[in-house]
Amino acid sequence: MSDELKDKLPVGFGYAACYAGLRKQQADDLALMLSETPASAAGVFTRNAVRAAPVELCQAHLKRSGGTARLILVNAGNANCATPTMDRVARKTARAGSKLLKIPVEQVLVSSTGVIGEPLDEQKILARLPELGEAVSPEGFDAAARAIMTTDTVPKTAFAQVKTEQGVVRIAGMAKGSGMIQPNMATMLAYVFTDAAIKPKLLGRMLRGAADQSFNRISVDSDTSTNDSVILLANGASGIAIGKADRKAFQEALNTLTAELAIAIVRDGEGAKKLLTIDVEGAENDKAAVRIAREIANSPLVKTALAGADPNWGRILPAAGKSGVDFDPATVNIHLNGFLVCFRGLRADFVEAEVQASMEKPESELLFRIRGKGKGQARFWTCDFTEGYIKINAEYRT
Amino acid sequence: MSDELKDKLPVGFGYAACYAGLRKQQADDLALMLSETPASAAGVFTRNAVRAAPVELCQAHLKRSGGTARLILVNAGNANCATPTMDRVARKTARAGSKLLKIPVEQVLVSSTGVIGEPLDEQKILARLPELGEAVSPEGFDAAARAIMTTDTVPKTAFAQVKTEQGVVRIAGMAKGSGMIQPNMATMLAYVFTDAAIKPKLLGRMLRGAADQSFNRISVDSDTSTNDSVILLANGASGIAIGKADRKAFQEALNTLTAELAIAIVRDGEGAKKLLTIDVEGAENDKAAVRIAREIANSPLVKTALAGADPNWGRILPAAGKSGVDFDPATVNIHLNGFLVCFRGLRADFVEAEVQASMEKPESELLFRIRGKGKGQARFWTCDFTEGYIKINAEYRT
Repeated sequence: MSDELKDKLPVGFGYAACYAGLRKQQADDLALMLSETPASAAGVFTRNAVRAAPVELCQAHLKRSGGTARLILVNAGNANCATPTMDRVARKTARAGSKLLKIPVEQVLVSSTGVIGEPLDEQKILARLPELGEAVSPEGFDAAARAIMTTDTVPKTAFAQVKTEQGVVRIAGMAKGSGMIQPNMATMLAYVFTDAAIKPKLLGRMLRGAADQSFNRISVDSDTSTNDSVILLANGASGIAIGKADRKAFQEALNTLTAELAIAIVRDGEGAKKLLTIDVEGAENDKAAVRIAREIANSPLVKTALAGADPNWGRILPAAGKSGVDFDPATVNIHLNGFLVCFRGLRADFVEAEVQASMEKPESELLFRIRGKGKGQARFWTCDFTEGYIKINAEYRT
Repeated sequence: MSDELKDKLPVGFGYAACYAGLRKQQADDLALMLSETPASAAGVFTRNAVRAAPVELCQAHLKRSGGTARLILVNAGNANCATPTMDRVARKTARAGSKLLKIPVEQVLVSSTGVIGEPLDEQKILARLPELGEAVSPEGFDAAARAIMTTDTVPKTAFAQVKTEQGVVRIAGMAKGSGMIQPNMATMLAYVFTDAAIKPKLLGRMLRGAADQSFNRISVDSDTSTNDSVILLANGASGIAIGKADRKAFQEALNTLTAELAIAIVRDGEGAKKLLTIDVEGAENDKAAVRIAREIANSPLVKTALAGADPNWGRILPAAGKSGVDFDPATVNIHLNGFLVCFRGLRADFVEAEVQASMEKPESELLFRIRGKGKGQARFWTCDFTEGYIKINAEYRT
C-alpha cells in the first residue's frame, strides 16, 4: 500500500475483493469490508416501495444490533431483488460471513447491485468468502472500491481528516453508481468508514444530514433504485471520541466527503460528459429551494441543452416553474457560468457565443436567484443528457 | 372542401390561416378560428408558475365575458413569453381582432407557441389579420390545424358526433405538440369546437373532465410548457341543447375526441417511434393509479427499454415504486402486449423473444395490476425515448 493511501485511511478497518463469477466481465464483483472491532453503524436506504432483500436485511440488522456492525458484504452483477429466493440468499450470505469471522449475525450488513429479477446464486459468494476473510487488509480499499462498480467507468473514493482537540480522526468513503446494471437498474451504493468514536444515534443523525446534502441532491435520470444504500461505520479505533466541540467539524468533513462521492457519481453518469452544479438562492425556505433545484436537475430539456452547450434560460425558467413552488418570474435572475442570462424573468444582455463557449467545458454552474421571497437555498448536481445514455439503455439485456 | 370533411365539422364555425413570417420556415404560422355567434367557452391552461401572456389574457377574458368567446387567434414561431412586451403584444393582437370583426374584446382569445424570451413582433400579425378575416370559412379547418404546428411532423385533428334526442351535434378538434419549438419549449395547444348548445359552467366542467383523462395523461419528456392551452367553444348553431339525458353521451364523445388528440401528440413526440398505452388497475383509488401510471410514463429507463423493445419489467416495477404510492410488490402482475412478464412481483415464465418481437411494433400496451388494494384505475400514454429526442434538443438554437 502506498504511504499516501495509508495516511488517508482510518485505522482498524480492512477490505478485500475477488471475482466470484456473478458478472460475465472478468472483474472483481465481491467485496468484504471489516471493522476490527464492533463499530457504531448507521444507514440510509432507498425509499422506493420496491426494495431489494439486502436493504430489508440491513434495516433489520441495524435495528436488532442497536446500530452496531463489523462486516459489510457487497456483490455486483446481481441486485438480489424481485426473485423468490432473495430473502433466503441475503440471510444465508450474512450468516456465512457471521460464522466465518465469528461475528454476531446482526452485525453483518449486505448489499447487492446488478440485474434485478434474476435469482442470485449464493453458492458463488459462499465459495469465495474464506479466501476473502484471509485477504482482509487496509490495502484492499481500492480493490473493494473497484469490485462494487457496475457500469461505472471509474472507481469513486474520497477521504477526509478532522482535527479534534485530542488529535486527528480519519474518514474514508467509496461509492458506485449510477450506471445501469446489465443494463437494468441505476443503483447507488456508498460506504463510509471512520476511526472516530461516535454513538450510533448521533452517527445516524450525522449520516442523514450528510446524505441530504449529497446523495439526495444528485440526478442522472430521475429513476431511483431498489437497492440504494449508504452505510457509515465508526469504530473508534483512533481512540478519539467526537465530543460536542468537534461535532460541527466532523459533520462538515463528512458533508464534504459525501458530496465528493455524490459528484463523482453524477460525473460518471451514463453517457454523461458534463457536470452541472445548480444553486438556488432566495426561495421561501430551503425545502422550496430543493424542489426548484431538483426540477431543473431532472429536466430532460435542461440536460440536453447542457449537452449542446446551449445557454437556454428559456428552458430553465419553466423547469423551475413546474416545481409546484410559487414564485413570480419577474423576480428571477439566472446566471450560467457567471454570465447573467436572465434578468428579472427576461433575457439579459449577454453574448450568446461567450456563454456557449463556457458551456463546452466539462463543468458548468447555474445560479437561480429569486428576489424578495426569503433565504432558502439549495445546491444540486446533475449531468448532461446525451445519445450515449439512450444507447446504453435502449440495448437489449444480454 | 371535401363532403367528408363538411359532414364532420360542427356548423357555425370558420377558420383561416396564412404565413405571417413569424418562423423562418415558409409555412403558415398564423391561424384564426371564428364562431359566427357568441359561443360558450371554456379553457384549461398550464399550471406552470411561468405563464405566457396569451395564457393570462385568455384567463382574464374568459372571466370577464362570463365564459363567452367568438374568436381565437393562434400564432406559431414565437411563444410571446418572458419578454418585456408580451402583455402589450397579446392585448394589441386581441384588440385588433376585436376591431376587425366587431367582436367585444373579451370574446377574443389568443395563443402563441414557439421560442420563448424573444420579443414577438405583433406588426407581422396585425398586417395579415384583414386578409385572414376575409378568408374565414369552414374549409380552412385543415389549414388552421397545420398553421399551429411547430416541430410536429403531422397535423392532429379528431371528430365526433353525438346523437341526441333532438338530432346530431358535432365536435371537431385540432391540437399541436409536443415537439420542441425552435427547439425551445414543448407546448401543447388544442382547440375543440361544437355546434351543441351548452352553458359555460357545464362546458367548463365537461372540458376539465375530458382534459383530465386525455391531455393530463400524456408524457413526452415530463417538461411542461408556459403556453399549454386547451379551449372548447360551443356555439349552439345546431339548434340542439345538451340536456340532462344527453350529457353522458356528449361527455363520452368529448373524452374520446380529446384522447385521440392527446394520443396523436404522444405519437408525434420528438424522436418517438413507438406509442405505449399504460393501464394501471387495482390501486387504492384512481388518484393513486394516476400517480403510478405517470411515474412509469415519465421513466427514462422504461422509455429507453421501449425503444430497445426490451420487456424489462425490472424497470417498470421500481418506476411504480418511486411514485410515493404504497404497495406490496408481491401483489403486482405486469403484462406487456398481453404477455404476463411479472407475476406477483417476480419474473413470470415468458419467452423473451416473443415479447421482444411484439414490442418492435409501433404500439405497445402495458398493464400494471395490483391485487387486493382497491379499484383505482388509470390510463396513460407515453412514447419511446430515442436518440432522435437528444438530437433535436441538444442542438443550438439557430
